[in-house]
Amino acid sequence: MRNLALRLMYDGTDFHGWQVQPNGITVQECLQDAVEKILGVRESITGCSRTDAGVHANDFCCTLRTESSIECCRLTGALNAVLPDCVAVKSCKEVPLDFHPRYDCKSKRYLYRIWNSQAKNPFLKNYAWHYKSKLDADILNEQAKQFIGTHDFAGFCSSGSSVEDTVRTIYDCGVVRNGDEVDFYVEGNGFLYNMVRIMVGSLIEISEKRIEKDTLTAIIESRDREKAGRTAPACGLFLDYVSYGEAEV
Amino acid sequence: MRNLALRLMYDGTDFHGWQVQPNGITVQECLQDAVEKILGVRESITGCSRTDAGVHANDFCCTLRTESSIECCRLTGALNAVLPDCVAVKSCKEVPLDFHPRYDCKSKRYLYRIWNSQAKNPFLKNYAWHYKSKLDADILNEQAKQFIGTHDFAGFCSSGSSVEDTVRTIYDCGVVRNGDEVDFYVEGNGFLYNMVRIMVGSLIEISEKRIEKDTLTAIIESRDREKAGRTAPACGLFLDYVSYGEAEV
Repeated sequence: MRNLALRLMYDGTDFHGWQVQPNGITVQECLQDAVEKILGVRESITGCSRTDAGVHANDFCCTLRTESSIECCRLTGALNAVLPDCVAVKSCKEVPLDFHPRYDCKSKRYLYRIWNSQAKNPFLKNYAWHYKSKLDADILNEQAKQFIGTHDFAGFCSSGSSVEDTVRTIYDCGVVRNGDEVDFYVEGNGFLYNMVRIMVGSLIEISEKRIEKDTLTAIIESRDREKAGRTAPACGLFLDYVSYGEAEV
Repeated sequence: MRNLALRLMYDGTDFHGWQVQPNGITVQECLQDAVEKILGVRESITGCSRTDAGVHANDFCCTLRTESSIECCRLTGALNAVLPDCVAVKSCKEVPLDFHPRYDCKSKRYLYRIWNSQAKNPFLKNYAWHYKSKLDADILNEQAKQFIGTHDFAGFCSSGSSVEDTVRTIYDCGVVRNGDEVDFYVEGNGFLYNMVRIMVGSLIEISEKRIEKDTLTAIIESRDREKAGRTAPACGLFLDYVSYGEAEV
């Protein structure tokens, strides 16, 4: 048995997320189909995260366990030839049998893109939240720093999650403006269900003055989902980078 | 009667080009539908160019002739509210009745995007030509300079065009690399049917050594479509900017 780590990039617009679902096509299912076409067997595939419907990935890691002796570079090329254009395999590397893409992950970085202009941008319709009122990126950046550190993020988690431990460490977080685009980035050791989208929604509500400035720390401490802001739309969210530290997958 | 100049941006992926067609939805038809919804009348709309199926526009100018006294800023907002997400009105300005978006155009700039990597990019599947073999952007840039000047571009025109005068002036032209993206840009006083896509196809064939270096000038002079390169795919092409000089539409 071999354990192969694949790095993917995908446009999540037409997917019902990563994980196989009864109703609707998912990235995992798509990849299983492609692997079956190439190797002739439906192999076990494990992902680093469960991205939601409409969420994208610039970088996603999953493992494929197989008895096949196919070379990694040949597998990459063959998979890319049969996968739909919205999914790409960036790399393939053989890793130890006990490597697990979720449990061995050291940190994940997310990017949330906001198109901040009165005018629509047809090219970003599926890749950014179109938010019309002018945002002050400097103020949002300053406010976002309250997320950094180890906190219980129970209030920044949508219901429907079965996770028991809601403590996560955020290493870095901020907001930058590039022309009419406002980007929120966050890196941490793990994220709860919809956590990044609720972080973004909360920052937006500071901008709208529905959440007072400098109160995010208190809102986090309250562990109360009602106190945090709304959930920002899925289309602006990208899993941007997944790090395995020295393992260098 | 008023003459209103609209600046548009559109994602051409799902359109059969600009011009109204019997089979397939076009940008012009979409805009006429939107105008009819807002003003209650199907008004006459004239475009600056006939972009092909799958070709995009970062900037496109068209005029709308109407008896309506609607304010320009109100019309912009109303149209954006009813247009599909793949078309945006960037601005609206009243212009003299004799202003014509095609005849009064001083220059047009096109951008052609090439994704030059072995790996697919799911986010550029409709917005760039995926060309795998490594391109030398410096050499292509040097070669592209042969297009600059006033030439008879009859050899860089697909059949099916009814244009009689095939002389055009290219003011600027070049190739730049940004990471894995190679961009071809060209600005001129006008372009023939598929001209930019044949320019790009010809540069690629220089890279493939199917067209010899420094022979583009002779190929242009030959006026022979057979001597020029193939037509690059539509998805990489963007009408990037349309200039009206001092008229400042």
